[in-house]
Parts: sequence; structure tokens; C-alpha cells
Amino acid sequence: MSIIVQKFGGSSVADAERVNRVAGIIADTYRSGHDVVVVVSAQGDTTDDLIEKAMEINPNASKREMDMLLSAGEQISISLLAMAIEKHGLPVKSLLGWQVGVHTDSIYGNARIKTVDTERMTAELSQRNILIVAGFQGINKFDDITTLGRGGSDTSAVALAVALKAEKCQIFTDVDGVYTADPRLVSTAQKQDEVSYNEMLELATLGAQVLHNRSVEMAQKYGIELEVLSSITNQKGTMVKENLTVEKTIIRGVAKDDNITRISIVGLEDVPGVAFKLFDRLAQKHVNVDIILQSVGRDGTKDITFTVSKDQQDVAMEVVTAFDSKAKVSCDNNISKVSIVGSGMETHPNVAAKMFEALYAADINIQMINTSEIRISVLIDINDSKKAVKAVHDAFIK
Amino acid sequence: MSIIVQKFGGSSVADAERVNRVAGIIADTYRSGHDVVVVVSAQGDTTDDLIEKAMEINPNASKREMDMLLSAGEQISISLLAMAIEKHGLPVKSLLGWQVGVHTDSIYGNARIKTVDTERMTAELSQRNILIVAGFQGINKFDDITTLGRGGSDTSAVALAVALKAEKCQIFTDVDGVYTADPRLVSTAQKQDEVSYNEMLELATLGAQVLHNRSVEMAQKYGIELEVLSSITNQKGTMVKENLTVEKTIIRGVAKDDNITRISIVGLEDVPGVAFKLFDRLAQKHVNVDIILQSVGRDGTKDITFTVSKDQQDVAMEVVTAFDSKAKVSCDNNISKVSIVGSGMETHPNVAAKMFEALYAADINIQMINTSEIRISVLIDINDSKKAVKAVHDAFIK
Repeated sequence: MSIIVQKFGGSSVADAERVNRVAGIIADTYRSGHDVVVVVSAQGDTTDDLIEKAMEINPNASKREMDMLLSAGEQISISLLAMAIEKHGLPVKSLLGWQVGVHTDSIYGNARIKTVDTERMTAELSQRNILIVAGFQGINKFDDITTLGRGGSDTSAVALAVALKAEKCQIFTDVDGVYTADPRLVSTAQKQDEVSYNEMLELATLGAQVLHNRSVEMAQKYGIELEVLSSITNQKGTMVKENLTVEKTIIRGVAKDDNITRISIVGLEDVPGVAFKLFDRLAQKHVNVDIILQSVGRDGTKDITFTVSKDQQDVAMEVVTAFDSKAKVSCDNNISKVSIVGSGMETHPNVAAKMFEALYAADINIQMINTSEIRISVLIDINDSKKAVKAVHDAFIK
Repeated sequence: MSIIVQKFGGSSVADAERVNRVAGIIADTYRSGHDVVVVVSAQGDTTDDLIEKAMEINPNASKREMDMLLSAGEQISISLLAMAIEKHGLPVKSLLGWQVGVHTDSIYGNARIKTVDTERMTAELSQRNILIVAGFQGINKFDDITTLGRGGSDTSAVALAVALKAEKCQIFTDVDGVYTADPRLVSTAQKQDEVSYNEMLELATLGAQVLHNRSVEMAQKYGIELEVLSSITNQKGTMVKENLTVEKTIIRGVAKDDNITRISIVGLEDVPGVAFKLFDRLAQKHVNVDIILQSVGRDGTKDITFTVSKDQQDVAMEVVTAFDSKAKVSCDNNISKVSIVGSGMETHPNVAAKMFEALYAADINIQMINTSEIRISVLIDINDSKKAVKAVHDAFIK
């Protein structure tokens, strides 16, 4: 029997009504003849509420204990969803990360899945049980609970789909597919029938907030087809699959990411290996660096600027200030990254010029530019970010 | 190094302030040179809140899923308490039931501990870690989470104390010891320095709500000394230990239990084995029957009356109504059981008369009477229960 993995985010199970609706979707999929494995996030604000409780008691709590705390959120949502499915008279079991054998490394708060032991899931599926699995969590070699960091439930879903050789992995969200821009920001944004893994990867990394990049990377690596669709409407979503023919398509989407901090170091000693050493120290502290710009400064010095997510600002600043006592360090988190993504971009050299023109026409100052083969990103003032998305989208799409 | 097991109930960790206070008690115990294993219940109203969420979605949810849901409550409290201890700069780890190897049978919602595998705990203690263990939960042979039912955290604490050969097990509650009656009901109630296991057992069973009977039974069986004390005041509590000299003591305490339902079956066919069959069927449904009265009725029939806790009323009534179509079944949950307990009672035959006289003087009607060697219980109208406790207490104590 073919296995379908379905993932529902926190807003899809935020209250009893939504839990019941999701249970209906699952029941329909099961009744149509599939084995169904469901991955669920914590309900609505549960995670934030738990973080608040922790902060009140100890703002410097260990990550091990934070993971123990936060993983309780998914435990609540999986059991409630299983109860809702029981009302349909269908056989169902909720299962935690350790019960389905999700083994991770030991980086608490940002663990990576190493293996998934399918023994229990396969046994339960052979009994025709619907499985409701806690996303976002696993266990490490010490039998301690770990969490997977942002977007972890997407990653859990794809990992289970890979391990179980599922037919496909459906990611249910509060949007009904992948749009050319966030429909809340740009009214003319269009839903797309399909995008390639690479395009989705750029969009995910850029803060489109539809799918997390780790999940897309994993899906691409193992060839799992993803479908992004809504848990509210009953419509077809967007398929994410291997490279498509992209002759016509130039721009797949416009995305913004407000969750970034720019850190600048001015006057670094200009000796070989200085950049390597700096970024190696950041990597040791598990800081994910995004855009990097390096330029030669005055008097035989170097300037390096890079961006990180806001929650890594403090640890990144610690590393950077300790790195070179003579250099001047500054940081700015009132910035936003706006990007256009599209596989056809390479063969259309005028894309960058057209984007900069649109921003210029909207009176938006560009602070930094970064490009890949299928993406152009600019850093701008955070107050301009919505306006920028709209301006760029209108210039390219329709 | 000697091991002390400390158990803190839900009200002791209800908010950040109380969690911090409990962390202080634990830190003091650890610094005084003991290995410390702590068992914690869910915070304050967490369990009730979770039950409410479940009821909203499915009032007939399976007990397996209820256990999955409710056990999240302890997961939250253990991690928060561990975070509070981290502030003291002490090594600490929170651990779930499955992580400390609490193996139970498979009766979801009311499981019994079968074995405790101490391997992980012993390893952690040898590293001088303070262990904060989730009470009330274990796993069964399917690797599914079970909960231990009412008072389960007390049972967890004693079970760990037994398994780890602890020096003693301290039960911290919101009262500072075992009183001769509930101090909130009877202002003249007196705190006792020590009571015997048997006396505590009768008091626990009778709804004194200080210690659960299963935990006392286990402590008695394995000779673990219990201390009941307050997490608020810093005073010595009440020791619960092996039989004491009881010549002087007649009455140890007066307790009431409002959580009971009386079920009556009138006109059962009077054939051999009818009572056995009835109570066997109740036992199969895991109904704990408390008081039983049987009398011969009219025309070769039998009447049987028994009490169960209110939450078992529905299942008990189902069994009873299906048992004999000709018998008349009724139930009443507006009743309360008031009891006096004391090891000296056997040798003082006037205790019962004195109790009944006190109730008569207070104008309270006795509906049923039941006695053991060290206990006399009466069933009365629930509206009279507070008055009855006071009347009986005043007649015997001081």
C-alpha cells in the first residue's frame, strides 16, 4: 500500500475546530486507500508560551532542558489530533520522536537527523494504523530529547517520507501553495502549479516561510515529491519536484526576510586566512552565516560584512568582538533582505538591472547586493521591505 | 553517598516563584552531601487544562491517547525545575519516565509499576547530577507511555526510592505533615510527629489526600521511611514508618472522602456465587470497590450495596445494570465517607459508640457503617461531611 506523509503546522491545529478539520483531511486520505503518516507541530502559540515560562525562571537555561520543555508542545498536539481521528472510528496512534526512532546528533536546539529507525512505524502501518508523529523532535545517542530548530517539523516529515519510501509528502500550511510573492504583501501574487527544488530552496532560504530549506534539501537529495497545500481550502497546491523546463519562466517569486542582522568588521588585519579563521570560529559556535561581503579597507586592512539570523546576533557578536581587538565591529538589525528567484534568470542578464530599476523608482536605497545563479538579493532598510517586495513583484510578474 | 528522593506535588511548582523555592530546597539537600533524585508532578492546573482540551475534541478519547497527552504536563514541570536548579550552578538533568526505566503494565490511566531499571539513574548519580524525574508516568511493553492514576507521583517517588535503595523519601505537599484532621476543616487539628504505615494507609485510602495508598503500601512493603513535609515552611514534618507503640494513642486522625458514589442493587437472585460474579465483573473493568454491604432481601432475593469513586460510577453502573435484568439498580453520589483511624482502636471498644454519639449530637444521619481493625467509617449526606469531621474530631482529640 502506498504511504503518504502529511505535515500540519502549528496554525493548522491551533484550536479544537482546526484539529477536527485536519482529522477530516487525514481520514479522507486513509479511506481513499493510503497508509497515512502524519507529522504535527505544536499548537498555535504553545511553543512561545513555553519559552516565556522558561525565560521567567532562567533566561540562560541549558539547551538540553529547553529541548525537554519545548518537545512537550508536540506531545500535546499529536495526542489531541489522534483523539480527533478516533472520532472517525479509524485506528490511530500518536507517537513521539523517540518512539518512531528519529535519531539525531547532540546539538540541542538545532539537531540534525542522522537515521530514522522504521521498525515500529512499519509494524504499526502493517496493522493499518494511522500514525500521528511529533515533528521537530528526536533523540540523541544519550537517549535525550533533541529538537531540530526552526522548520523542524518540515524536516521531520521529509525524513519520515524518505525512510518509509513514501509516495509523496504533503506539507499543509495556512497558504494554499507557493506564490510569486507573499499574498498578504502583494495582492497580485500568483499561485504556481509547480516549482523546482532549487527554486524552492532559494525561496525557503530567503524567508518565504513556506518550507524550510533543510526539508527541501533532503527532499531533493532523496527525490521525494513535496506538495504545499492548504489545510483550510480543499484545492490543489504547488508541487515541488525535480528541475522543470524553465525557458519561459524567468521569475519564480519575490521573497523578503526581516529576520536578519548585518554585522560589519572594519579594519581587520589583511593577512592570509583571516576570513577563514573568522568564519571557522563562527561555525564552531553553530552560527549560520548567510551573505558575506569582503572588501579591502585602508592601510592594509580588510573589511568583512556578513548577515546572520537575529537570534544568532548575540553569539555572532561575541565571536566577532573577541576576534581582533583592533578592528571596529558594528551591527544593524533594522534591515531586510529582498530577493527574486527563478531558474530562467541565468539566460536573461537584464534581470538584475530591472530589479534595481524597480527599487530606484520606488525610492529604496540598496545597501548590499548578493547573487546566485537563480537568485538576486538586496539588503535594504527594514521599513522599506514591504514596499520593495511589491515594487519588484510588479516589475516582473504580469 | 546516601540517596534522598524528594517528591513535589503540582501546587509546590505551580508558578515561577514556587519553582524557584523548590529549587532552593533541592540545592540545599544536594549541598549537604546527598545524592538527590526529585520526582515532580505537573504544575498547578496543567493536568486539568489538558483534560479540558481533550474533552473539547473527544470526550471518549482512548486512554492511550489521554496518557500521551497528560504525561506532557510533567515534562514541562521537570524541565522548568531543572532550569531553576541550573541557576544555582549545580549539575542537573530532567528525565522522563521512559528515560529512567519506569516499566508498567498496560492499563492506561491507571498503570502499575512493574520494574524500575536503575542503569541510567545510577550512571547520572555517579556523575553527581541532580535528577529531576517526571512522576506519574512510565512505559509499557509496547514502549507506549502510561500514567499511574491518582497519586501517581507519590508512587513514582517511592518506587524510585525502593529501586535506588534511598535513605528516605520526602513527600513535600502544601500541608506540613499529617494532621489529626484536615486543618482547613478543623481548627483544632494537630500535627503528628509520626504515624505507622497502617494508620497512614487507612488515612490515605479514606481521602485524607496527603499520601496515596499505593505509595504507602509500597513504602511499607520495602521498608522505605516516608516523611511528609511542607515545601513552604521549613519545619520538620511527619514521619511514616513501621508500627509504633500505640498504647496511648487511640485516634490518629479523622478523614473524609467526598469522592464516592454508592450503588445499590435490590432483588438479586439469591444463588451461590452471585456476589463473586458481580465483583469479578467489576474487577475485570478495573473498578475499585470500597465498602460492600450485603443483606438478604424479600422473596429469596439479595440486596448488595457498594461504593466506588465518582469517576468509576459510569462504568460500575454499566456492569451492574447488565448483570441481572430483574434487579433494581440505583446510585447516589451525594454522600461522603467520614472515618476515624487509630491503631489503639482494637483495644478500646467504646470508640464506635463514642463516634456515633458525636454524630447523633450533631444531628447527622448515618447511612452505612463499615469497620476494620484500626478504622471506623460511616457514610453520611455529603452536605453534613464538614460538620461531621469537626464533631468526631472534637469528641476524640484533645
